[in-house]
Amino acid sequence: MKVSELGEFGLIELLAKIAGQLKDKSVLIGIGDDAACWRTEACAQLATSDSLIQDVHFTLSTTTWRELGWKALAVNLSDIAAMGGFPQYALVSLGLPGDIEVASVAELYEGMAELARLFDVSIVGGDSVGAPVVILSLAVVGKAQTTQTVLTRSAAAPGDRIAVTGYLGASAAGLAMLKKGLEFDKETAATLREAHLKPHPRIVEGQALARHGVKAAIDLSDGLVSDLNKLCKASGVGARLFTNQIPVHPVVRRSFGDDSIELALSGGEDYELLFT
Amino acid sequence: MKVSELGEFGLIELLAKIAGQLKDKSVLIGIGDDAACWRTEACAQLATSDSLIQDVHFTLSTTTWRELGWKALAVNLSDIAAMGGFPQYALVSLGLPGDIEVASVAELYEGMAELARLFDVSIVGGDSVGAPVVILSLAVVGKAQTTQTVLTRSAAAPGDRIAVTGYLGASAAGLAMLKKGLEFDKETAATLREAHLKPHPRIVEGQALARHGVKAAIDLSDGLVSDLNKLCKASGVGARLFTNQIPVHPVVRRSFGDDSIELALSGGEDYELLFT
Repeated sequence: MKVSELGEFGLIELLAKIAGQLKDKSVLIGIGDDAACWRTEACAQLATSDSLIQDVHFTLSTTTWRELGWKALAVNLSDIAAMGGFPQYALVSLGLPGDIEVASVAELYEGMAELARLFDVSIVGGDSVGAPVVILSLAVVGKAQTTQTVLTRSAAAPGDRIAVTGYLGASAAGLAMLKKGLEFDKETAATLREAHLKPHPRIVEGQALARHGVKAAIDLSDGLVSDLNKLCKASGVGARLFTNQIPVHPVVRRSFGDDSIELALSGGEDYELLFT
Repeated sequence: MKVSELGEFGLIELLAKIAGQLKDKSVLIGIGDDAACWRTEACAQLATSDSLIQDVHFTLSTTTWRELGWKALAVNLSDIAAMGGFPQYALVSLGLPGDIEVASVAELYEGMAELARLFDVSIVGGDSVGAPVVILSLAVVGKAQTTQTVLTRSAAAPGDRIAVTGYLGASAAGLAMLKKGLEFDKETAATLREAHLKPHPRIVEGQALARHGVKAAIDLSDGLVSDLNKLCKASGVGARLFTNQIPVHPVVRRSFGDDSIELALSGGEDYELLFT
């Protein structure tokens, strides 16, 4: 059945059912009313929003609906991770062409729900509107451990060392593989595809950094060079990168040879955390 | 200058400047970091998200950018009003074709800021991405007076009387006027245009209803018949409307004659509150 046949209300009911399984005790009103409502305590609250737009951020020819749902939530959770926080609630605003299959939208939500479950995030709100292309606009609300432990882009100081979580370059390598139809052995292909389409937000790592006194962080969405530049600008500092010390993803190094360093420096979408 | 020439970072800086004037004392981190951060107390928090998409919800040939910014925030504030709550923080996710003028986007933000100021809302987050059409995805976070005073769609009971704030039909009449190029005297035209393009969210009215013991409400976005049906379904009740008692907007009644009742019943986008 097409989205246009089911109608907006039927669709919201279906999505509420998938999302409803995630409702935690603090949620007083979930999907289906004018706004969501939850009980909160006194704290430093965090909120972020980010959109994925068809043929700008993804193409349906290389991604599954489930991966797309995962990624749309992941890029928002990554922003909460970069603040050292705990994500709690997600609002999902969908734009959908009428000829999309309802089953596809259900899969999309299942991908989101899969990731939400991993980090105890409740999908509390959602609306769906007609659109010329698929649009996924998410907002995520969470909290910081304390007002003192929020990681910011502006807290880097001269003399700080620059570090990242994990390895870099695999997401951009995955995108290159999908776009150009590059062929690799099964395991390599799976690693690169997952890095690009199912990034793992570094929630636990961000929390650990904040707990251990790190002050400055940013998540790597545009690429190491670009995001480091943003952090430097916000902090009023400069930076020196030693290219021989960049943690290029071993699979990328093996598969892309001399190009791998460029993928790690400028590729983007690794959703690792850069901190100082 | 075009959006594509200024680039994403320049644009965010500009928008942060316009939105930055709205920052209240509770905001610890506004636009420009990975996520916004504010101090909150123990309360029942409300959150909603809603998108406006070019050529689905508006056309740039009949709306100004300033009106568009106002309306994008207004439809979200209206959802908070329908819960009887206080809106506090807004996150704005923009999708923009590269050939849009930067001055237009600034006007859009000024329209949003104008309405935000009226209700002490801080625009704390924003991102901007490329898109084939203009997309405005907003999320608004606020709070309820208490967990007991939240207005819901599901609280209507048999025997309740049905009422609305204000008059109905003027927004749909304004849309008809703009779409069909209907001509009216200056004052009528201005009233209808404003009703459609600059709706006033019933924040104060929603709060008053909640304070005075009303339990069930919904905002009128799809139209009286459709939204009343949603409220009835959520509450498990039926309803009887007396068409001779519908508060049709006097300007609509005068200008649209026999069609006015239909505009008031099914026109939608009045953003008044329906309550029982």
